[in-house]
Amino acid sequence: MSSSIDVAVIPGDGIGPEVVAEAVKVLQKVADDAGLGVSLTEYTLGAEHWLTTGETLPDETLAALRQHDAILFGAVGAAPGDTRIPSGLIERELLLKLRFSLDHYVNLRPSKLYPGVPSPLAAPGVVDFVVVREGTEGPYVGNGGALRTGTDQEIATEVSVNTAFGVQRVVKDAFRRAAQTERKKLSYVHKHNVLVHAGHLWKRTVEAVAADFPEVTVDYLHVDAATIFLVTDPARFDIIVTDNLFGDILTDLAAAITGGIGLAASGNINMDRSAPSMFEPVHGSAPDIAGQQKADPTAAVLSAALLLDHLGHPELAARIGRAVEQDIAGRSELGPRTTSQIGEAIIAALS
Amino acid sequence: MSSSIDVAVIPGDGIGPEVVAEAVKVLQKVADDAGLGVSLTEYTLGAEHWLTTGETLPDETLAALRQHDAILFGAVGAAPGDTRIPSGLIERELLLKLRFSLDHYVNLRPSKLYPGVPSPLAAPGVVDFVVVREGTEGPYVGNGGALRTGTDQEIATEVSVNTAFGVQRVVKDAFRRAAQTERKKLSYVHKHNVLVHAGHLWKRTVEAVAADFPEVTVDYLHVDAATIFLVTDPARFDIIVTDNLFGDILTDLAAAITGGIGLAASGNINMDRSAPSMFEPVHGSAPDIAGQQKADPTAAVLSAALLLDHLGHPELAARIGRAVEQDIAGRSELGPRTTSQIGEAIIAALS
Ligand SMILES: CC(C)[C@H](C(=O)O)[C@@H](O)C(=O)O
Ligand SMILES: CC(C)[C@H](C(=O)O)[C@@H](O)C(=O)O
Repeated sequence: MSSSIDVAVIPGDGIGPEVVAEAVKVLQKVADDAGLGVSLTEYTLGAEHWLTTGETLPDETLAALRQHDAILFGAVGAAPGDTRIPSGLIERELLLKLRFSLDHYVNLRPSKLYPGVPSPLAAPGVVDFVVVREGTEGPYVGNGGALRTGTDQEIATEVSVNTAFGVQRVVKDAFRRAAQTERKKLSYVHKHNVLVHAGHLWKRTVEAVAADFPEVTVDYLHVDAATIFLVTDPARFDIIVTDNLFGDILTDLAAAITGGIGLAASGNINMDRSAPSMFEPVHGSAPDIAGQQKADPTAAVLSAALLLDHLGHPELAARIGRAVEQDIAGRSELGPRTTSQIGEAIIAALS
Repeated sequence: MSSSIDVAVIPGDGIGPEVVAEAVKVLQKVADDAGLGVSLTEYTLGAEHWLTTGETLPDETLAALRQHDAILFGAVGAAPGDTRIPSGLIERELLLKLRFSLDHYVNLRPSKLYPGVPSPLAAPGVVDFVVVREGTEGPYVGNGGALRTGTDQEIATEVSVNTAFGVQRVVKDAFRRAAQTERKKLSYVHKHNVLVHAGHLWKRTVEAVAADFPEVTVDYLHVDAATIFLVTDPARFDIIVTDNLFGDILTDLAAAITGGIGLAASGNINMDRSAPSMFEPVHGSAPDIAGQQKADPTAAVLSAALLLDHLGHPELAARIGRAVEQDIAGRSELGPRTTSQIGEAIIAALS
């Protein structure tokens, strides 16, 4: 535990800068109170930056980012109808490039239904689970291609690449987390009845690692069945481990049932610490409400808490968690608040 | 419209035989009433059959199935813990082999929340949409492989194969269906910000076909966002078109929000009629409740209705639909019923 932390901040596009501003304020406040120094370096990246400079993530910027202890990330992405930016370019060349270059193999996405938050489910029960999404493999690797593009004979492929190395490390991480929860339950999700090669690598890996964690109860769900349980019995889940694409899908659904992506935080974690980890709200840049102080900064604030936890300050993370919980509990009595009003309220709830 | 239909019946495993028995009774009844002859030929296939014979789908059986007008399918698959059957073997070598061999490129899955059916959603609204799932391509093709299996250097790949031919025909089908609904709305779902090659083939295809259907409103959703809307605003959907894997996931979720897979019917349709189409409940073989008359046969009955519709008897299909709707509307006042009691009640509701 060091007495100062060095954080790179990438506010990004749309609502990114607004929500990150609040997260930074909260981070700064709990650090100040604890006598922890915080050095913040802002990096201007994203769709807007690409429009003015043509740059997504230059090598020098990536090298500079590597020097920090961690990265706080807002959101990036062009407005859906914006034809000036090739679809998905910023997501791939900036966000995914960061995850892959910095080897963020544990994409950690906690889902908790806070008391007082309305869920779209009629009877959600006590929902409190964590998805450990693999972050560096699967169908996200960018393999594949197209032949005879634009003709009636076009063939387009996408290759999901999965390695024992990649699956083992994320499965081990998930078991370690499951061993520390009260329920000690791990659900692994795939589609191994159809995707046999990748599926069986996952299956064998889970079975092998399970031998080292006899205290953890393991169950398997096909991804389609997992979506059913997420709406019919989300309380059954404790730790879920799954691949990059299934994790993408399940965590958006998980965010929806726990009150929306305005509350869902995530960490893109390099557990080996060979490069800085990155913390970001699960939500996107929401260009339609950008600059209007309408976005909920809670997911960004909770992402800052995950950052503090990762950097060895779990008590500061917990302090933020409690403040957020308190703020959320009082929400139903309040009218709509601006982004910074919510940030200020969370800061007020810290004390 | 012929005066008799020739149907192959594959009851399969687990609850398959029980639910198919009721579907056959209902089919027979509406056909009799209309003076439509029904010839039924039962085929014994599935996990149990494999255990006794080692056969999944012999060439001669496939050839025989091709001679029928349509296939009514129950469910197949071994019990999850059954180690005698390689995982997924029956699903791939029987169910998927039928879909691929008989070129079932339109996997049609209607989702309707019937009045009286409890949804896990607090405020579902009026849910009535159809998913047109591509059935012969995508990550389901069985391409890919593994290298250095079982070692720490293992690499396993899954290749999603997508062709202009395959995407065009299913997208055109979905547009045709959308043009016939009241709302005339088509949502296409993919993940084209990450899966660029397949995603852009889908995107370009949808844009091209849309030109022929100016009356249809089109919107695009990433698959992760689609799962959010399915729980926060399912009433927004009319026709959804998507690939084989995303369709698998979305239709289980859709079944869950509309009261469970006990009600979800599907058609695996060859729109060119070069081979028989196949109709099956979305649910699996549910070995845990098999043989106990606990399964709801409604999904199988509604699958028989889709079969009649496909074979040119929409009025008979509608008759079954109304009877099911009536039976469902009275359910909340009734205690649990057996599989055949539900079948009988639907028959009683026909008149
Ligand atoms: C923006 C997109 C590339 C990203 C992903 O698919 O991982 C997002 O959906 C997420 O879940 O963080
Ligand atoms: C059993 C399995 C192969 C099948 C699929 O994945 O298509 C099932 O989940 C379905 O949706 O019909």
